Amino acid sequence: MNHLLLEQQLKQFLIEDIGDKDVTSETIFPLTKQGEAQFIVKEDGILAGIDLIHMTYSLLNQSIEVSPLKADGDVIRAGDTIARVKGSMRHILTGERLILNLLQRMSGIATATHQAVTSLDSTHTRICDTRKTTPGLRLFEKYAVTCGRGFNHRNGLYDGVMIKDNHIAFAGSIEKAVTAVRKQLGHMVNIEVETETREQVQEAIDAGADVIMFDNRSPEEVSLFNQLVPSHIATEASGGITLESLPSYRHTGVDYISLGFLTHSVKALDMSLIV
Amino acid sequence: MNHLLLEQQLKQFLIEDIGDKDVTSETIFPLTKQGEAQFIVKEDGILAGIDLIHMTYSLLNQSIEVSPLKADGDVIRAGDTIARVKGSMRHILTGERLILNLLQRMSGIATATHQAVTSLDSTHTRICDTRKTTPGLRLFEKYAVTCGRGFNHRNGLYDGVMIKDNHIAFAGSIEKAVTAVRKQLGHMVNIEVETETREQVQEAIDAGADVIMFDNRSPEEVSLFNQLVPSHIATEASGGITLESLPSYRHTGVDYISLGFLTHSVKALDMSLIV
Amino acid sequence: MNHLLLEQQLKQFLIEDIGDKDVTSETIFPLTKQGEAQFIVKEDGILAGIDLIHMTYSLLNQSIEVSPLKADGDVIRAGDTIARVKGSMRHILTGERLILNLLQRMSGIATATHQAVTSLDSTHTRICDTRKTTPGLRLFEKYAVTCGRGFNHRNGLYDGVMIKDNHIAFAGSIEKAVTAVRKQLGHMVNIEVETETREQVQEAIDAGADVIMFDNRSPEEVSLFNQLVPSHIATEASGGITLESLPSYRHTGVDYISLGFLTHSVKALDMSLIV
Amino acid sequence: MNHLLLEQQLKQFLIEDIGDKDVTSETIFPLTKQGEAQFIVKEDGILAGIDLIHMTYSLLNQSIEVSPLKADGDVIRAGDTIARVKGSMRHILTGERLILNLLQRMSGIATATHQAVTSLDSTHTRICDTRKTTPGLRLFEKYAVTCGRGFNHRNGLYDGVMIKDNHIAFAGSIEKAVTAVRKQLGHMVNIEVETETREQVQEAIDAGADVIMFDNRSPEEVSLFNQLVPSHIATEASGGITLESLPSYRHTGVDYISLGFLTHSVKALDMSLIV
Amino acid sequence: MNHLLLEQQLKQFLIEDIGDKDVTSETIFPLTKQGEAQFIVKEDGILAGIDLIHMTYSLLNQSIEVSPLKADGDVIRAGDTIARVKGSMRHILTGERLILNLLQRMSGIATATHQAVTSLDSTHTRICDTRKTTPGLRLFEKYAVTCGRGFNHRNGLYDGVMIKDNHIAFAGSIEKAVTAVRKQLGHMVNIEVETETREQVQEAIDAGADVIMFDNRSPEEVSLFNQLVPSHIATEASGGITLESLPSYRHTGVDYISLGFLTHSVKALDMSLIV
Amino acid sequence: MNHLLLEQQLKQFLIEDIGDKDVTSETIFPLTKQGEAQFIVKEDGILAGIDLIHMTYSLLNQSIEVSPLKADGDVIRAGDTIARVKGSMRHILTGERLILNLLQRMSGIATATHQAVTSLDSTHTRICDTRKTTPGLRLFEKYAVTCGRGFNHRNGLYDGVMIKDNHIAFAGSIEKAVTAVRKQLGHMVNIEVETETREQVQEAIDAGADVIMFDNRSPEEVSLFNQLVPSHIATEASGGITLESLPSYRHTGVDYISLGFLTHSVKALDMSLIV
Repeated sequence: MNHLLLEQQLKQFLIEDIGDKDVTSETIFPLTKQGEAQFIVKEDGILAGIDLIHMTYSLLNQSIEVSPLKADGDVIRAGDTIARVKGSMRHILTGERLILNLLQRMSGIATATHQAVTSLDSTHTRICDTRKTTPGLRLFEKYAVTCGRGFNHRNGLYDGVMIKDNHIAFAGSIEKAVTAVRKQLGHMVNIEVETETREQVQEAIDAGADVIMFDNRSPEEVSLFNQLVPSHIATEASGGITLESLPSYRHTGVDYISLGFLTHSVKALDMSLIV
Repeated sequence: MNHLLLEQQLKQFLIEDIGDKDVTSETIFPLTKQGEAQFIVKEDGILAGIDLIHMTYSLLNQSIEVSPLKADGDVIRAGDTIARVKGSMRHILTGERLILNLLQRMSGIATATHQAVTSLDSTHTRICDTRKTTPGLRLFEKYAVTCGRGFNHRNGLYDGVMIKDNHIAFAGSIEKAVTAVRKQLGHMVNIEVETETREQVQEAIDAGADVIMFDNRSPEEVSLFNQLVPSHIATEASGGITLESLPSYRHTGVDYISLGFLTHSVKALDMSLIV
Repeated sequence: MNHLLLEQQLKQFLIEDIGDKDVTSETIFPLTKQGEAQFIVKEDGILAGIDLIHMTYSLLNQSIEVSPLKADGDVIRAGDTIARVKGSMRHILTGERLILNLLQRMSGIATATHQAVTSLDSTHTRICDTRKTTPGLRLFEKYAVTCGRGFNHRNGLYDGVMIKDNHIAFAGSIEKAVTAVRKQLGHMVNIEVETETREQVQEAIDAGADVIMFDNRSPEEVSLFNQLVPSHIATEASGGITLESLPSYRHTGVDYISLGFLTHSVKALDMSLIV
Repeated sequence: MNHLLLEQQLKQFLIEDIGDKDVTSETIFPLTKQGEAQFIVKEDGILAGIDLIHMTYSLLNQSIEVSPLKADGDVIRAGDTIARVKGSMRHILTGERLILNLLQRMSGIATATHQAVTSLDSTHTRICDTRKTTPGLRLFEKYAVTCGRGFNHRNGLYDGVMIKDNHIAFAGSIEKAVTAVRKQLGHMVNIEVETETREQVQEAIDAGADVIMFDNRSPEEVSLFNQLVPSHIATEASGGITLESLPSYRHTGVDYISLGFLTHSVKALDMSLIV
Repeated sequence: MNHLLLEQQLKQFLIEDIGDKDVTSETIFPLTKQGEAQFIVKEDGILAGIDLIHMTYSLLNQSIEVSPLKADGDVIRAGDTIARVKGSMRHILTGERLILNLLQRMSGIATATHQAVTSLDSTHTRICDTRKTTPGLRLFEKYAVTCGRGFNHRNGLYDGVMIKDNHIAFAGSIEKAVTAVRKQLGHMVNIEVETETREQVQEAIDAGADVIMFDNRSPEEVSLFNQLVPSHIATEASGGITLESLPSYRHTGVDYISLGFLTHSVKALDMSLIV
Repeated sequence: MNHLLLEQQLKQFLIEDIGDKDVTSETIFPLTKQGEAQFIVKEDGILAGIDLIHMTYSLLNQSIEVSPLKADGDVIRAGDTIARVKGSMRHILTGERLILNLLQRMSGIATATHQAVTSLDSTHTRICDTRKTTPGLRLFEKYAVTCGRGFNHRNGLYDGVMIKDNHIAFAGSIEKAVTAVRKQLGHMVNIEVETETREQVQEAIDAGADVIMFDNRSPEEVSLFNQLVPSHIATEASGGITLESLPSYRHTGVDYISLGFLTHSVKALDMSLIV
């Protein structure tokens, strides 16, 4: 992750919470009061965001010491201590909530991703995310997906083409749509085409798509469509796949399965700061 | 909500998604291509954020027309159309994802809040939120809570004092902590004290707390503690209360019940844009 | 004070003054030229803002050493040295004016506040500020008020309700206005009501106001009105009270007296940098 | 004034005051409630900043109509209405305080400047400001000085050279200092030299200064020194000159008299909004 | 191009040039003085950036009317008028220099690109740009390349992988480098590998590169290497190719030729504003 | 140069290039992989911007060590190493392109300026720049001009008056234009007048211009006009002067010759990073 962007955002987040001042900690604790505390987890899961503890505290007070005990991607268990912090009590408490809000969410995403990867249990097919992320937090959430052993789909509208039904309808055909795009964009941008039928899959192959998505298809259809596609074109199943239905896609041979729920409906992984 | 802040954030969110350009829509749709589309809901719930459709599109293209059909706080049903949009097809599609990401999340929060209010079914006790919001989105999420008939706890560390065990331990007693704060802060800032025992409740009353929180207490304890507190001091139950356990707090007489899950573990309310 | 906000603003202020470069110091002093200087006061008063010397210089040049000799809130006398600085002569001079502009203003406010507190000479009644601060500098000015032993009223429109005549007129009555607000806002926001008559005071008490302001009232009226108000409701006298008329409010028993002139008409406390 | 900068700053100022929302006006007034109000002055003086009423309100609500009745630089009398506003009552009240805080301060500066100009009563000598402005508000305050018929000294450290005693001491002599600067800077930057003696004035002339300042000199000395200076070099008297001592400088022939108090110790001109 | 980003940057550029105010136009022209002017070109070339005239002026003054007479990508001749403007004389002159600085540079880039395309004269091989753009202006410059019928290589370090000799050396081999990247990145990111020998080309093919670059190779080598590469892998020649040597690459069959000089050494296309 | 502004811009430039992350270096190099590299020049010229290497790398990674071997303004030869860097290989490569993009451009400007100074070969006449700089980079480019021994004309529209034909036409005469400006602006702002005839030169002298520009005049005319101007008024030749025609202005006696091509048509000085 780009540290300059992270730092900018962490500053904004701290300002959102602290405003002009932390009226509780500033009035009770003198700046010099030292203390120790630890971040512990209260549920089993996968950790994501451990470096943010240090980054956040160093924005508040450069002399707070942070000792991480776990790394991103680690399996963590209820009761585990993930980091110890030591320094000005006032600032340890001022930063507590932001750090928990970020780590709980990111670890929730990593955990859900890991569950999906485990549930799918495939050596070939990868789990990936979507653009259904929380506005303003895409950098954090896409990173959390990788901590859970998932992969990132395009970051935004700028780094990958996704041709959907509306685009096809307007252009006239998949071939016309792909051709229009290819005529204007260079060799570093991939073109993905959404398909729902065997005919569309064939059309996408012929049009020279780089990635073909099977939208809202059953495992059987995905399997069937996937066999049509030459190996240098990536394939992706998407739309309405849940943690429960994932295993049924295990043997489809598709390259990627994208899951919106990884980021649009996050269950925070419970953590807290113990002084 | 402060429109200047909203607009600033919507711009940032659009830039996060679009980057230098929407490589799909810009290469397929000419700017002049007009179209119509509607935002529909696919699950029952409570709506929050309807004005953001217009605000977002007007940042992209001032000539897109948005006709809202529902208002924030409305009960919405699967299949309902909540707004129609008309204008440049290119920009309708460019803004689609951000709008859905925001409305799905906000309506998810409003829906969960409304469920809590309904589940509690009390004419006296109010449901409120916490600071366990998504970093950067507090303004949006606290507003969504009110759409579901919940109330807002303090916005941040700057507009309300919350004295917790660490503060009390350091200060020496609840009384000393409250006095230290009162000595420095004026009459517009409320002081809330976390308590776990009857003795602490009495101490907080004597110290002149404005709000007394019963932390992680059973309905019976909440009931008992609440009776100790004079009517001009507000009371709040907090900690570990779930949608399931809420009804058991119905007759405790407590003024507020704060629920972290309203915002820390949001289930998006499914919506989509139909062209 | 939130250091992240302070640093952001100090950067903006330095950029306002320096622009692309300090054409005088950069062309005469080589960066390596070292020097020593001291900030001295030329009038008696109360100091506010001493930490800003270090914060400002560290933005310009991390190797400038600042040794403060006085603390915020200290009584300072004409001729006192408040801080010594040592380091790159070029940057000591580049930062001089901003530091003086801030400290003179803040110490002017602290001094005026202290005069008000002294003039009132009450063990019960507190002096507080208003929102009549310099745009962009509220954080600095509200802090300066506390250095002079004053208290802060609400920070802005977001952290406290103030119901004035226009609100009452529109709502229909004080009771209706307070009820409308209470119906929408939670327990951490205080509601203050402006009153001018005994009847209004009683209405505000009955409506459940948290703070009652006596607007533009004589000491006798303030005294009388104040006796009507139960002790758990704070009282405030406001409007047209000057340094001269303050002592006449000494025995009114009111909790707070708010003074706009503390911040809207600041007389800078004279200081300078001596090399 | 550069409208882009003004707008940026007005937004920041509004956000400082409103934060997430105006909890009073938003909970009492529906957005549709219309009203009318007028800005009136309560003291005699000179107006500055009238355009900011419209600019501020248009940031809050594009449909508020503002009708200015006076122009910047106008003499205004207690009781005068300077502008009428019409539109959403909620936003009229939300913007009131910022507008008053700006206009009172700027008109205070314009009034003090005008008093200085009147007190000096010279057809030749001009009154000008200094860099002793409020951090962040230089654009507004320098403009206000011109509304009172004063002139602007350099805007900052970037657009004019000011050689003071420290620079001279380090460089070795006035001549060496001026030469060092001239060697590096082009023909669009003026060089001003601070002098205290006749010899220094002569040295500055010989060195080719563009402006010569007589620092902390009596009217007699200013008169004497001024005669030494050829007409193509501007002269300036500075340091410790007050409204009272100004008339004694009337016949010195100096080109400019700079006054720090115009901006460092502003007495707000009383105004209010009447609904 | 993303209009929100463009507008943000145009504001910054205007502020860079205007600062607090345009001291010439503001002091000579009253705001109401109307005028007409036209932007004319003084050299033959290709136009890029015509929309920026309207966008820039609308930031300064919404009532200035801009009538473009040419479109981006058009061949323009010395003497051609590309746009007429009408409105406040003051603001027409204030915006003149920024508009010329942008259009001259962008049209210079479009012209150089067009010369390269013409010089190459190939129906198969495309000209593309590099990351050797002016810091802060990549959005503008990459767009200008497309106006001259060139294509865009990756936008930045975030939207395409480029494996160079250092990466290969560290990873151990091309295959190991590509595998390491593929293991971590998803299907929407293309991997380009720099090669210098036939063996490296083969290695890159076997490793599954999406794009293979022939770095600093003669036309003969490019021709030879290109024949090795299967059609679904894009090829690119790069390094030291000039306008003069371009034609010798005409029949190599390579897909892309990237040219740094298009953006790192721009010759402005002469234009001016005639009132 | 103001380091606060530089740092702000370098951050923006890095974010422009890196976006969310450097997908190549982050996936291949572990953060701990150390390396060494050197910046070398591949063409003869003048160096500008050497400090930016350290400033840029310290934004990416505080532990990268940079040892500059040359200073700004130095003559550099093809093959020279200008700086060595040591530290995290990942970040050395991430920052490479931005550093090269800046230094190549700035050194290109310094080199062109130096060529102009050498070509003119005058002990009296100075070469200076114009406002024809790259939007957003004026600070960098004006500095680069001074590295090549050129001088800076005004920075922007805010720090110097330039009266052109349109202003004169509207005002009625040079005298009226100068008078209008002088009436409003103080003694620190210089007024330059563009002239084309002997009469206009005389008019400008009589009007009290501080600088007189001879616009698009032959060496003979410049010589003639220059003799008319008293020594305390600076003179400038401008318009269409090229590297070739410069020597013919050697004996005109004019004080400044301004050259737009120094910054509007930069040829980058070739450099690269060798690991």
